[in-house]
Amino acid sequence: MRLSRYFLPVLKESPRDATIASHQLMLRAGMIKQSSAGIYSWLPLGFKVLRRIEQIVHEEQAKAGHIAIQMPTIQSADLWRESGRYDAYGDELLRITDRHKNDLLFTPTAEEMVTDIFRAHVSSYKQLPLTLYQIQWKFRDERRPRFGVMRGREFYMKDGYNFDLTKEDALHAYNRHLVSYLRTYERMGLQAIPMRADSGPIGGDDTHEFLVLADTGESEVFYDSAVTDLTFGDREIDYDSVEQCQGVLEEFTSKYARTDETHDEAKFNEVPEERRRTARGIEVGQIFYFGTKYSEAMGATVQGPDGKAVPVHMGSHGIGVSRLVGAIIEASHDDKGIIWPEGVTPFHAGIVNLKQGDAEADAACQSLYDALTEAGLEPLYDDRDERAGAKFGTMDLIGLPWRITVGPRGLKNGVVELTSRKTGESEELAPDAAVARLVEIYKAHGIGSA
Amino acid sequence: MRLSRYFLPVLKESPRDATIASHQLMLRAGMIKQSSAGIYSWLPLGFKVLRRIEQIVHEEQAKAGHIAIQMPTIQSADLWRESGRYDAYGDELLRITDRHKNDLLFTPTAEEMVTDIFRAHVSSYKQLPLTLYQIQWKFRDERRPRFGVMRGREFYMKDGYNFDLTKEDALHAYNRHLVSYLRTYERMGLQAIPMRADSGPIGGDDTHEFLVLADTGESEVFYDSAVTDLTFGDREIDYDSVEQCQGVLEEFTSKYARTDETHDEAKFNEVPEERRRTARGIEVGQIFYFGTKYSEAMGATVQGPDGKAVPVHMGSHGIGVSRLVGAIIEASHDDKGIIWPEGVTPFHAGIVNLKQGDAEADAACQSLYDALTEAGLEPLYDDRDERAGAKFGTMDLIGLPWRITVGPRGLKNGVVELTSRKTGESEELAPDAAVARLVEIYKAHGIGSA
Repeated sequence: MRLSRYFLPVLKESPRDATIASHQLMLRAGMIKQSSAGIYSWLPLGFKVLRRIEQIVHEEQAKAGHIAIQMPTIQSADLWRESGRYDAYGDELLRITDRHKNDLLFTPTAEEMVTDIFRAHVSSYKQLPLTLYQIQWKFRDERRPRFGVMRGREFYMKDGYNFDLTKEDALHAYNRHLVSYLRTYERMGLQAIPMRADSGPIGGDDTHEFLVLADTGESEVFYDSAVTDLTFGDREIDYDSVEQCQGVLEEFTSKYARTDETHDEAKFNEVPEERRRTARGIEVGQIFYFGTKYSEAMGATVQGPDGKAVPVHMGSHGIGVSRLVGAIIEASHDDKGIIWPEGVTPFHAGIVNLKQGDAEADAACQSLYDALTEAGLEPLYDDRDERAGAKFGTMDLIGLPWRITVGPRGLKNGVVELTSRKTGESEELAPDAAVARLVEIYKAHGIGSA
Repeated sequence: MRLSRYFLPVLKESPRDATIASHQLMLRAGMIKQSSAGIYSWLPLGFKVLRRIEQIVHEEQAKAGHIAIQMPTIQSADLWRESGRYDAYGDELLRITDRHKNDLLFTPTAEEMVTDIFRAHVSSYKQLPLTLYQIQWKFRDERRPRFGVMRGREFYMKDGYNFDLTKEDALHAYNRHLVSYLRTYERMGLQAIPMRADSGPIGGDDTHEFLVLADTGESEVFYDSAVTDLTFGDREIDYDSVEQCQGVLEEFTSKYARTDETHDEAKFNEVPEERRRTARGIEVGQIFYFGTKYSEAMGATVQGPDGKAVPVHMGSHGIGVSRLVGAIIEASHDDKGIIWPEGVTPFHAGIVNLKQGDAEADAACQSLYDALTEAGLEPLYDDRDERAGAKFGTMDLIGLPWRITVGPRGLKNGVVELTSRKTGESEELAPDAAVARLVEIYKAHGIGSA
């Protein structure tokens, strides 16, 4: 993309009502625009990041064998009356009446609807296991929306639901989700720590939240520092293997890690003192096993091997897709702006032309642009007639991980400059070598066609 | 995908309330499930087609230089009061009140919101031309929703908006949209004919609808048969070229083609009698130029070259993404089921194992599956322990364009059978040759990594 043809409305000033870094930076970098309290439009740069995150979620869900569907945002109140949640949910449920005076609602979560799909179409245990998920807009009418997309009213979320014959099978599905979530977050450059959690209005026994450590996190967290040494990495996993998934669960959840909601001071004190940590965290996902709560209320049964109808064991599992955009920024920024991890960056490299209009510089930039595009990467070329300082400022603010600076002086020596946004370190390289370096960097993240 | 692990709830009977082919077939093929009147869940097969269509729209919009954003579904009534549409829109607008008694609505279209984004961030003609678009869920509270996704209440739509300094520039944007729409529909295997249309509640002067001919179409259409000979094909186009885009507009709209709303009997009679056609059509898109209607009402001005503030010229342009799923089926099906065009098919080929459990047949199927996957194609492997007839019936119903049938008898001769869903013709080929044939077929559609 050429910046002169893009729509990137960066702001010089930090808006007054934005109190945390991600909210300020998303507004300043022209990623979002508020339209009502807690409701945002996603401008081009923000939408690109949202799509990157969505794509990673889809890919990792597919690897785990989970199947994508799409449920409507507007649902019938009658379905929610079956589970009892229509009355129980409170003021956060956006209730709607249509022209024929039917009671509808904007879905904040979809246990009822997915259970309705299940009971209409599945009748035998032979059709199990089954996990259906969607990525869809949700609405929660927060009393006091704040922190930008971190606690908005309309938000984009992945919600998945497993259906299993037995509790054991459902716990395997739970573990499978835990593994897939670890992979998902790591691909986004995040360390998200699974912590024992409360189940809240969805109900249930087993549940873990995934928390990203950040000073601005809404939750106080307590953990054994050994949990931050754990990474999933690029190990192979067989999602059908009960042992392997259970092993990952044990590895990642056996050490102490809890939010203030479930914190147990006595247990925490069993952790060696030098490894006890207190910090703040942002919730970016949650997994639940809640057994037959919805299947019993709504009659979602299957015929078991013995011919008897039994309610299925279920769980639900969420990733806050739009919230993640904010969480990643909270975890990765500096005074100058955002620092995108390679896995989710809206553009893979910025090209800064120091002397727009200079034939040689223009040609070199175009050639870099073409080579990166050819390699399946997306560059953002700042081809505006602006001072170098302004161009650098924009690139630092919007946080592309790599910048290639092209100027007449360097070109005389046959080099351009490749700069890391994270370290600030620059290196002079031949243009071809700069492209090759970027191709190699992104290949390690599974990005690009090379 | 292995069918044994997929969720494909096909129905034997055609549901009684479904009166047109696409609605019946989408229900029978397990693509959708109704949740309320005019509101559907998209089951796995349906969601895959929806995503294919969405992806084509995104790709063609990017080629035209249009920039993707995402606006919220829930919008403030105040914004719509600025344009006067909050009161004017009538009962089809889903009006909502939140917990703080604010008036909101579920957006049926987004002229107001995109104009609000524009006026907040664009102030100079130097930032033009600009076209922003989104693909987002919309809601229209139809009095009598019917025909499945063809006239639902919640629907998925691409809506794009151009902002230009002058009427001439805006008409170029109009033409650019026309060209990109022609390409978009052709990639979906559709012939969509631009027809002069009425502007309806959006208002405006120049407008064309794109209609797909189908017996079940809601509109009566009148056209010169010469228009159905036109194809865009794989010609090159420079979207910046006013002449080229204008040329395409003239080529595709100068012959008579109108819906009943704008039909002019006298002009129709000027068409040579043997070329006069009357048929039915399904609207799958519409482009509008409406000038300064919204920019004047909402104060969306830019400073022109002479320093004076002028309201921008705008247009809006829509593609019915969810409706297209139905429209494609209306245009392409037979007694046995759907016949997907290659460009949008949910899976690229079906693999039918005639003797599940036979070691040689199983291995051959797995090997075909791996080879197709390796080539960047998505096969659906019917690995169930079912009769051949049932497997063929399912494949015919769900309409994959190509089927590979694998059985012990053929394998003895080193062949499998490749069958076209469209023609019903089969050919015996070595497994490698069948894969090579499919790779070649899909390569012509820009699909696959080969």
